[in-house]
Amino acid sequence: MNSINVKALAEQLLGPYAEIRKASRARAADPQLQRDPAWSMDEHREQVLRQLKVLVDQKAVQRAFPKKFGGLDDHGSSIAAFVELVAADPSLQIKAGVQWGLFAGAIMHLGTEEHHAKWLPGAMNLDVPGAFAMTEIGHGSDVAAVATTATYDPETEEFVIHTPFAAAWKEFLGNAALHGTAATVFAQLITNGVNHGVHCFYVPIRNEDGSFVEGVGGEDDGLKGGLNGIDNGRLHFTNVRIPRTNLLNRYGDVAADGSYSSPISSPGRRFFTMLGTLVQGRVSLDGAATGASKMALQIAVTYGNQRRQFNSVSDTEETTILDYQRHQRRLITRMARTYAASFAHDELLSKFDAVFSGREDTDEDRQDLETLAAALKPLSTWDALDTIQESREACGGSGYIAKNRFTQLYQDLDVYVTFEGDNNVLLQLVGKRLLTDYAAEFRKLDTGAMARYVAKQVGTTALYRSGLRSVGQAFVDVSDERKSANFFKDPANQRELLTDRVNAKVAEVANALRAAGKDKVKGAKAFNENQDLLISAARDHGQLLRWEAFTAALTKVEDPTTAEVLTWLRDVFALSLIEDDLGWFLAHGRLSMQRARTLPGYLNRLLDRLRPHAQDLVDAFGYTQEHLRAEISTGIEATRQDEAMEYFRKLRASDNAPVSEKSLKKSKA
Amino acid sequence: MNSINVKALAEQLLGPYAEIRKASRARAADPQLQRDPAWSMDEHREQVLRQLKVLVDQKAVQRAFPKKFGGLDDHGSSIAAFVELVAADPSLQIKAGVQWGLFAGAIMHLGTEEHHAKWLPGAMNLDVPGAFAMTEIGHGSDVAAVATTATYDPETEEFVIHTPFAAAWKEFLGNAALHGTAATVFAQLITNGVNHGVHCFYVPIRNEDGSFVEGVGGEDDGLKGGLNGIDNGRLHFTNVRIPRTNLLNRYGDVAADGSYSSPISSPGRRFFTMLGTLVQGRVSLDGAATGASKMALQIAVTYGNQRRQFNSVSDTEETTILDYQRHQRRLITRMARTYAASFAHDELLSKFDAVFSGREDTDEDRQDLETLAAALKPLSTWDALDTIQESREACGGSGYIAKNRFTQLYQDLDVYVTFEGDNNVLLQLVGKRLLTDYAAEFRKLDTGAMARYVAKQVGTTALYRSGLRSVGQAFVDVSDERKSANFFKDPANQRELLTDRVNAKVAEVANALRAAGKDKVKGAKAFNENQDLLISAARDHGQLLRWEAFTAALTKVEDPTTAEVLTWLRDVFALSLIEDDLGWFLAHGRLSMQRARTLPGYLNRLLDRLRPHAQDLVDAFGYTQEHLRAEISTGIEATRQDEAMEYFRKLRASDNAPVSEKSLKKSKA
Repeated sequence: MNSINVKALAEQLLGPYAEIRKASRARAADPQLQRDPAWSMDEHREQVLRQLKVLVDQKAVQRAFPKKFGGLDDHGSSIAAFVELVAADPSLQIKAGVQWGLFAGAIMHLGTEEHHAKWLPGAMNLDVPGAFAMTEIGHGSDVAAVATTATYDPETEEFVIHTPFAAAWKEFLGNAALHGTAATVFAQLITNGVNHGVHCFYVPIRNEDGSFVEGVGGEDDGLKGGLNGIDNGRLHFTNVRIPRTNLLNRYGDVAADGSYSSPISSPGRRFFTMLGTLVQGRVSLDGAATGASKMALQIAVTYGNQRRQFNSVSDTEETTILDYQRHQRRLITRMARTYAASFAHDELLSKFDAVFSGREDTDEDRQDLETLAAALKPLSTWDALDTIQESREACGGSGYIAKNRFTQLYQDLDVYVTFEGDNNVLLQLVGKRLLTDYAAEFRKLDTGAMARYVAKQVGTTALYRSGLRSVGQAFVDVSDERKSANFFKDPANQRELLTDRVNAKVAEVANALRAAGKDKVKGAKAFNENQDLLISAARDHGQLLRWEAFTAALTKVEDPTTAEVLTWLRDVFALSLIEDDLGWFLAHGRLSMQRARTLPGYLNRLLDRLRPHAQDLVDAFGYTQEHLRAEISTGIEATRQDEAMEYFRKLRASDNAPVSEKSLKKSKA
Repeated sequence: MNSINVKALAEQLLGPYAEIRKASRARAADPQLQRDPAWSMDEHREQVLRQLKVLVDQKAVQRAFPKKFGGLDDHGSSIAAFVELVAADPSLQIKAGVQWGLFAGAIMHLGTEEHHAKWLPGAMNLDVPGAFAMTEIGHGSDVAAVATTATYDPETEEFVIHTPFAAAWKEFLGNAALHGTAATVFAQLITNGVNHGVHCFYVPIRNEDGSFVEGVGGEDDGLKGGLNGIDNGRLHFTNVRIPRTNLLNRYGDVAADGSYSSPISSPGRRFFTMLGTLVQGRVSLDGAATGASKMALQIAVTYGNQRRQFNSVSDTEETTILDYQRHQRRLITRMARTYAASFAHDELLSKFDAVFSGREDTDEDRQDLETLAAALKPLSTWDALDTIQESREACGGSGYIAKNRFTQLYQDLDVYVTFEGDNNVLLQLVGKRLLTDYAAEFRKLDTGAMARYVAKQVGTTALYRSGLRSVGQAFVDVSDERKSANFFKDPANQRELLTDRVNAKVAEVANALRAAGKDKVKGAKAFNENQDLLISAARDHGQLLRWEAFTAALTKVEDPTTAEVLTWLRDVFALSLIEDDLGWFLAHGRLSMQRARTLPGYLNRLLDRLRPHAQDLVDAFGYTQEHLRAEISTGIEATRQDEAMEYFRKLRASDNAPVSEKSLKKSKA
């Protein structure tokens, strides 16, 4: 059997910022930035604050900021670097994200020059730890509805920040419970009796001695399911006065006399433009979640390749557990999905960099970026939980011991599915975008969805155009197993099935909404009656984007064995998706019954073919023992199994090996 | 709208041991038996040990033991009582299970009178905390392969307990790291050069000062993903000598001269008989996991019924989140499944009691009990993780705060899918049983599978016999939506679809194995190539058992509204199962395309119909705030939402309400 080129594949998996990622992984391998599982919550919080200072000292945090403040104006690579910190400790990654992505990011993206000069240096060097006060207890992902008010008082030229009721308390804010001395607060801007919608304000919240400034109050969120290195908390404001100039006024300003002005006339568009600068959070979570999945799989596959259990084939040798079909189903399908997520993340990051660098910065580019991030972040964060959990279970009781890493990764990653936009809410946004695009978009069946978003990287589209087949053909075909396999492994068919599924589901929702007419209540009812279907279409759309990214990545593989193995892996990804939703494909005439019946068997054969490459495929993720920090990934299990086998070999060779009662009875019979 | 009778339903849900459960729930509501989330691992371990002593003082642990030791010989009710402790703290439930279910249980079930007299009192009153030393690092769920040896030495009339290599260390044992002073150790019994297979030995492991006795060593497993109130650890033995009479000799004995005798001549049957006495662990986990699912749902539905987000219908009022279709899909389908699990657990517990009381104690009864437990425990423990996680996500960020309970429940319940038999291994056992029964069983299509196991509780079978329809009819039927709905809601059709699915999958595996012939290697290969399918058949079998238990429970509901609502809920359970595996039903001609296409919509309509009853349905689970201990289940969210709505109502009525820029622009236009 030929082996794949692990080194080249590892390099490809590092994506467009390979060197940056390597440097950040080297940093994450340093114990001083890692978590000690024995830390209490209080200690963990202090240690992560200390670690943030180490990042400042190592000049590891400035990349995305303007050159005049010592940065590089380099957005894509900044995210690539931060994302890799998840291997050190997700708390570190997220607290860094709060400080430099959200708090300093709000100053940079929503503020103007004066704000940058005044507040960026302190935010960058951690002199001013800051909270990002957007979410409210009662409004979660519905940011437009935040109830905190910022009312302009022309008498004193101040904004009055106020929390009108308990549901408007700012909630779940990192840095709010302990360390934050300032906050970027999102509130309804009211001046001259008009509410101009949500704007962001810079508000000092703590005095030098750590006490709250007058009018500010708060609570510690206390122990969480994970991420306990971050001091999340609540804040509320009672008529807190701040200077007029503390409004981060890039997209909306109030003059001394109280008159409002904005470069964006539509309040709706203005709101989404302001929020759009925060897309980097979703991009980061997509990357970090994919990294966590990779680590979990690297540990679990390593163990599954060493651990033996039950002597099903031989009397003297137990079977390596990764040889069991069920184990391959559990791990190799998730490996395929993680590869797809990794390639898709690279494209997302490239798109993000194109927009934030200004290279491709039209309204449409920004909307495409947001849709792409909103489609991928839910999939990768849910997949991380599923992959970590399955990996932990695949390692049995050992998976449950904290020193084997899975449970802590799970606990920390858990909330990734909720913050920076709840996954279901994000998918609904994607669904709405799909509906909006429906008329224009879905007539052009041969345009790749990912290609549309990553416009400059097309080229792959032509690959498929020629291969397109009418869906009808598949249905009447009464072929044998081999013909079925040929059908399923043809990327043109995979692509068509996956594309068609999105289109058909969106069309079904669109038709239902059209039938409901213009009446608002009826329309809302019809929308709700199709909500589950629309969210499922959005999920399918995200999977299609991943499939396209995976397929595009195949063209970049040079080594033929690697290309062949990765093609099988892409097929596993595609066919798992189809198998998971087989009922839809059959009920809607996209697959014949005969084809559908052969699918599980073909998938099983692909898994069996991939099995000898499983270790190489996870080794290519490139994490070292310093990152994995799981006892069972060190080879300890192989040592134990070898010792046991040697013991039994010697025993069998010796004269005093006990015979079993069972065999004794057999020989007597 | 008529309401259901919550009180009567709550009583029904408490099952055959309602009064015992109520008493145990009252105990679980007592703070002295509950966990303080702030405890460190060390403190948590000491507190749980203290709590076990409280249970002894309250005489809460003796029920299952012989009357002569102050017990009641009452096995079913004993489990019902222990299971409810999960509401206090899963660590307490499991450590109690280790002490009284496993350690004392092994003495009781595997030992004889002399052992009972010598060791039961200390095990019962906790003078001797004990470990149950079965699992080994290298052998997990493959208990027959444990490598620890107990070699009889006729010279001294002692057994020599020995660990031959590292993979044979006993592992994950509760009470082993700190508190245990003795252990019931499972080892290969060797006497006169013959290995008689796995037997259980009583072995002192610690001296009075807490140090290990000579020859015994061990390690602390340290921090785990959860259940940190239990001191799990590893043990190993270096030629540790124990008296011959420390062999728990109910099923196999060694005389002073070393000759072996057993009341069970087949070594295989002997092994399974010994192990069979441990089925209570699986029964307990099934009940506890179902209890945890109930608690999670009671919290999440209460919150979902109060929390509002996005004003999709009205300009002034936000929508209650449980009114969203997606939210109903997330919670109400899981509620249906939890009801099914609850009713199935009651039947499992009744069967368990029948066998352990000796009322129905044939070999076949015992095997049926084991198959039933092995089928239900995997489903309910996996479902608990899925239900707790979905509930936590459905409560957004609040779900992630420890004081809202979900994350701790998840972390503790995580390992329930692994211990007492890994879920996949258990389902494979069930699958093998299904294969064994294939020829005899699956020709009788009209015998209920659950009814077969719970033989004395039949009576429901007749219900369906008359309703049976040929599968073929459904396929040619080109009916409208209403006809489809009528088809899906007919319990005879549900039953037939679910039964037929198990039969067909088992038949497929059986045919593949038959084709492979008698060759051992070919047979093992064929088995492995069908492993995933067989495990899926076993899972389907478990779901069928649940469906039958749910359907049987419907006949016991007296109040007509309750009966109607529960019937919808049973339909949701059945149709969710069919929807989840829709591809199989279509590919194998059990459903027509038209029927399949109408299924999701019909399911959605059922959810909408159940939605007004959702709160009642979780309230019937009967947990109080003392059990739930989640801030968001207390009504705090309703208070917050009411305050906010009142604020806006007053604001709208006042003269100085700001107008929005958006509406201003609209009115100008």
